[in-house]
Parts: sequence; C-alpha cells; structure tokens
Amino acid sequence: MSGKTVAVVGLGLIGGSIAMALKGFEDYQVVGAVRSQKTYDFAVAHGVCDRVTMDAAQAVREADVVWLCLPPQAILDFMEAHRDDFKPGSVVTDVCGVKTSIVEGAKCLPPTVDFIGCHPMAGKEVSGIANAEAAMFQNAHFILTPGPDNDPAHVALLERMGKYMGFRDVVRATPEQHDAIIAYTSQVMHVLAVAVCDDPDLFSCKGFEGGSFRDCTRVAALDVPLWTELFSLNAPALCKVIQNLEDNLRAYREVIASGDTAALAAKLEYSSQRKRRMNFDSPI
Amino acid sequence: MSGKTVAVVGLGLIGGSIAMALKGFEDYQVVGAVRSQKTYDFAVAHGVCDRVTMDAAQAVREADVVWLCLPPQAILDFMEAHRDDFKPGSVVTDVCGVKTSIVEGAKCLPPTVDFIGCHPMAGKEVSGIANAEAAMFQNAHFILTPGPDNDPAHVALLERMGKYMGFRDVVRATPEQHDAIIAYTSQVMHVLAVAVCDDPDLFSCKGFEGGSFRDCTRVAALDVPLWTELFSLNAPALCKVIQNLEDNLRAYREVIASGDTAALAAKLEYSSQRKRRMNFDSPI
Repeated sequence: MSGKTVAVVGLGLIGGSIAMALKGFEDYQVVGAVRSQKTYDFAVAHGVCDRVTMDAAQAVREADVVWLCLPPQAILDFMEAHRDDFKPGSVVTDVCGVKTSIVEGAKCLPPTVDFIGCHPMAGKEVSGIANAEAAMFQNAHFILTPGPDNDPAHVALLERMGKYMGFRDVVRATPEQHDAIIAYTSQVMHVLAVAVCDDPDLFSCKGFEGGSFRDCTRVAALDVPLWTELFSLNAPALCKVIQNLEDNLRAYREVIASGDTAALAAKLEYSSQRKRRMNFDSPI
Repeated sequence: MSGKTVAVVGLGLIGGSIAMALKGFEDYQVVGAVRSQKTYDFAVAHGVCDRVTMDAAQAVREADVVWLCLPPQAILDFMEAHRDDFKPGSVVTDVCGVKTSIVEGAKCLPPTVDFIGCHPMAGKEVSGIANAEAAMFQNAHFILTPGPDNDPAHVALLERMGKYMGFRDVVRATPEQHDAIIAYTSQVMHVLAVAVCDDPDLFSCKGFEGGSFRDCTRVAALDVPLWTELFSLNAPALCKVIQNLEDNLRAYREVIASGDTAALAAKLEYSSQRKRRMNFDSPI
C-alpha cells in the first residue's frame, strides 16, 4: 500500500465516529483497533473503517497518525504500555475531555513521537459503537492543545483532519486553559444534570416537564466510570466552578425570597443581557 | 353567525399560537383581542384568527370561551376590570405559569362565569406574535387545575381544545400541586440558566461550548417582567427547590474535592440511574 495509515484505538461512541468521519481522508487508510469481538464484528459488518484489528500494538507500529479513543486512565496506560510500539515520526493524539494530565502522561513517549492533545467537543448520552455516526461532529468545536515542541506540520495535519470530519471550527488552547474553561462549559453542566435528578420530586414531576427540564437533564444518564475519571482529573477547576454556581443560585434565592421585585427584575435583566450578548458575539 | 365564539385576549407568543392552533375547532369562531395597532395589523395580515378586535370588553361579552393570554398581574387586573363583561355561562381560562394566585384572583368573577386554570407548558426564548406558531404545542403538556365547583362539561370542552391544539396529553392537578412541581420542572431551570450566565467566564468560553451548555443556557435570554412576576408569585416553593439544588451541588462538590473516586462513582451511579428510571417511566 502506497498510502499512509491512521489508527483509531478504541471504537466506542467517539472512536467509532472518528473512524467513520475520517474514511477517505487524503491518502490515509483508516485502521480501527478494538479489544472485544463484539465491537470487531460490528465494525466489520458496518464498514466503520477500512480495516479492523485486535492487535493494537501492530496497528500503532504501522500508523502515521494514532487517535487514542479510550477513557482517560486507559489512554495513559496505553501510552505507557506501547511507548516503544509507536512508529518514529508518527503523530499521536487523543479525544479526552481533560488535557493537562493527558499531555503530562504523554511525556513517557519517545522524542520521535509527536503527541498533540485534542478534545473533539461532541458526545451523546449513550455510548458504544452502535451509537457512533459520521455526522457526530457537525457544528462542534475541535480543540487542540499543541505545545512549543510540537511540529507545526503535524498540528496542521490534525486541523485538516478536523475540518474533514465536519467540525465547525478549530480552537487552540493550552491544556491548562482548556481544563479551566471546560470545567465551566461542560463538566459543571453534567454535575448540574445529575444534581437536578437528585431532587426528591423527580418521579412525581411527570406530566409537568417542559423543554428546559428535558434539555437540562438530558446528559444526566451519563457514563459513570468515564465521568468519574474526568471529574477527578479536573477536580480543583471543577470545584471552583460548582462553588461559583452555588453562590449565584444563592444570590437569586435571596433576592426572590426578599420580595424586592425591582431588585429581582434588575438581576434578571443583568443576567439575560449577558446571555443575549453571548448569543450576539457567538451565534450558535 | 350560528356558531360559538372563543376569545383569545392577548396575541403574544402564547396567545397568538393558541389562536392559530384553535382555528377550525368545532363550530367556534376565534376572535383575538389586542391592544396595540402593530399586533392588530400583524394578526390581520397573517390570518392569526378569524377576527381581530381592539375592543376586549366587547369580545368577552360575546365569547362562550375566553382565553386570557396575558402576564400574571395583567390577567388578575383584566378579570377585576371586566368582571361584569363576561357572558353568563361562559368558560374563562388562562395560560399563566403559576396557578394558585390566578385561581384565587378569579374568585372576583360572578358565579355565572366558570373559571378553570390552565397552563399550556410550552414556550420559546423569544416573545411576541411574530414568533407564534400553530405547532407550538406539539409534544407539550396541557395542564388544567379544575376545582370541585367547575362544570365537568366545561373541563371536557377545554380538554377537547387542548387535544385539537396538538398537545401530547392533558394533565390535571390542584393549583397548589401545580405550583410546587412547576417550581422544580420549569422555574428553577430558568434560575439555573441565568445563574450559569453570571459566571465570570461566560465571555471567555467561546469555542468551548458543547450541546449541554447550549441546552442549559438556552432559556436565559428570558422575558424579564414576565419571569419577575412568575418567580415572585411562587417564591416559597421556588426558594425551596433552589435550596435543594444548592445542597445537591454542594454534595457533589464535596465528594469531588475529597478525592474519593469510589464515593464519586457511587453517587454518579445513583443519580444517573434515577435519570434512566425517569426516562423509562416516561419516554420523552
């Protein structure tokens, strides 16, 4: 084969979708590496990638680009276990929702391997290859966290892949910036969703839910082991954002309880104008 | 005209949508009563109802059914001001998101008028007749709060109207039950949305928002005078739910900060199973 190879290690919801979305990218053959026979069979039957293998070591030995599509700790373990398997000159990236600890862990790789952190900001409230789809990344942000040691040509290659997969834009940040902001835009939304479901009225509210309730609690049926890792790996930033939200909720509770409707109106005006300005700045 | 008349007082987002959705209901003519020339012109130009008038008193004098589609205090004021205009034997209902204070206020009406509280659980983050649509109520709950003094034939008539307008089901509750539950399923979702937008990182998070963030903050650009009234009229129930949510968030913050990943996983398992059970009980 004269072309190049991109290996997708782990064909779950995200890995499966990346494999599907990358098919046909430039002159790359897409190889999926899986551990379970069930996933192997599904991937073969549905043509998720050009080739599927259960030999991850061999897959990364041949790959010019490796996408690690596993949970956070499994990514760290995989890099440690396969540090000498990666092809010299190859680019390795990942899909983890936290970046500082992954980029730190990638320092175990030999200097001939170029690791660039990535967070494709997409997901669903269900997991597994059966829920994967090539259109997963439409309208989503493709976040890269390159450092000064990364080869710009490799960063550009990943950006081309992001565009090919249908992401709406490419965003760059340092791993630390990423983790601080993601605590706010993603992690606390998941904490909120589960916290709302802890209310004693959850099961007696049937017939009274509207769009806002369905939207807010949509992500509460989350993948517990995955989110346990994500929250734990970003605990200080996440706890700060939760504390902010508790404070902001208490401030609303206090003004509502006070009976001062003018103060409540002024506070709602302030917050809703922030939201309108946000919409104006970034139409989504 | 041999048929009957339903008057929709106030053709905003909800009133306009109700008028559109009611057109053709049994042998009723739909008459919209408005105050502004601009709304009048829009309603006539777009055929929002069979007839539009700026004389609300005359409209309710002729109406067999009256829908009061105004903000809460305006509904109370309208009933007080027009108590002697309503046609004897007519049914009067409303669309307010709180019910106890409205049903209480309706006691000013003469005994020949049958007031039945209603909450069509639909909305958008924009207001006004230009955003109204006949399909507004698809998949939404139609909540009625009839009391022992209401005529069952009138309750049945409103239920037929709800079905005709495309609501997915009819739900009955007492006004007090409604207000306690709606504090949880709707009001606190709006408090949450604005509280999230009060975070100092709001404007620096562009490029990092995903579906959960967009969904949670969608309703933050709210109608300030309307929601000031709704929150204020249901303050005790709402404050209790906000307090519950603060407590549930703090419990998550504490377990995340503790570093006890087994305890965090157990807590996430508990909450996410509640969400899954909720989905199972009520597929939406």
